[in-house]
Amino acid sequence: MFDPFNKEKSDFLKKKDKSKKGSIDRDIVKLVNGVNSKNDYYATSSCAGRIVLQEVKSRKKNECSWIFAKHDKVKFSEIIESLKKHQKNKKTKHEIWFKQQPLILHIACRNLESAKIFLDLSRKIFRRAGIIGLNERKITIEIIGSEHLETVVKDKHFVADEKYLKQLIKYANRNFEENKRKIKKFFRNLKAFC
Amino acid sequence: MFDPFNKEKSDFLKKKDKSKKGSIDRDIVKLVNGVNSKNDYYATSSCAGRIVLQEVKSRKKNECSWIFAKHDKVKFSEIIESLKKHQKNKKTKHEIWFKQQPLILHIACRNLESAKIFLDLSRKIFRRAGIIGLNERKITIEIIGSEHLETVVKDKHFVADEKYLKQLIKYANRNFEENKRKIKKFFRNLKAFC
Repeated sequence: MFDPFNKEKSDFLKKKDKSKKGSIDRDIVKLVNGVNSKNDYYATSSCAGRIVLQEVKSRKKNECSWIFAKHDKVKFSEIIESLKKHQKNKKTKHEIWFKQQPLILHIACRNLESAKIFLDLSRKIFRRAGIIGLNERKITIEIIGSEHLETVVKDKHFVADEKYLKQLIKYANRNFEENKRKIKKFFRNLKAFC
Repeated sequence: MFDPFNKEKSDFLKKKDKSKKGSIDRDIVKLVNGVNSKNDYYATSSCAGRIVLQEVKSRKKNECSWIFAKHDKVKFSEIIESLKKHQKNKKTKHEIWFKQQPLILHIACRNLESAKIFLDLSRKIFRRAGIIGLNERKITIEIIGSEHLETVVKDKHFVADEKYLKQLIKYANRNFEENKRKIKKFFRNLKAFC
């Protein structure tokens, strides 16, 4: 019998990865494969978490570009070199933000019943999880981790000093580890419960 | 005819406000009243957004306390005095975080159909909006604003300097204004559409 969810899932999984990076983040591969192996679910997008330096070109148009991005913990030298290099190449006056962003996952679920199971499982670990889309073909859940750090480090009037940047990196790396621990825990729960 | 949603709504609205503050934030009163005036919805909790200094007593137990909180823009003097006073009274070695947090709203909806309408309306303005609870009696939506700033300003090894704190406050206040603008826009949309 024709099953529209199965058709959409199999079409989706055949498609090329359209993300900037072009592949699933290492820390989340097991989890994404685990989700995709379940009959009622598949992951439509995923990010294991990252540490970035973002240049805000226009707030109104929401135009940003990354001057640094890593899906792992970072070293002070990487951040400082990236900031210096950027400043040398482009005498920009834009704001630059340092952000440690947690896991983000989008999961397509077969129906409301299966979505509710996945949502309950997610919310035991990740406070920010909810159904963001509903239609006849699928229900979409978004899951966002809790650990984050987000602050400005430079604009045309100031630049954060190296002492403070070191602290930011220390805490961003700690959050990154905590986020990773929760991804592993979520994977274990997923295997056990649905 | 007995209507369980109407009963729960009317019971809820009669109850005393159990929040720390004990009242609805000024910037969000109109919006909350607007939601409550609709037949299919009521707000179960709300925060218009705030700027806080948070002392992390135990990360493991998730124990935090506020040493400063304001549901409005802040002055440099307020923050610096609050930090100094705290340090004088308690020679604490805990981390202190400066956070500008956006709007957060929880909306109870009569059924899936009404939840979908509210969700679509919310997601036009607030990217972080989703259904977080479903049962026979109601569907609960959580809406979280996008503007936030969250960083560490002190621990046992360091303290952010006044120059940097000034920048943090500048950007936190700007975000706060942006968040307020979106609350107003959302209220206009709500009046027009459902």
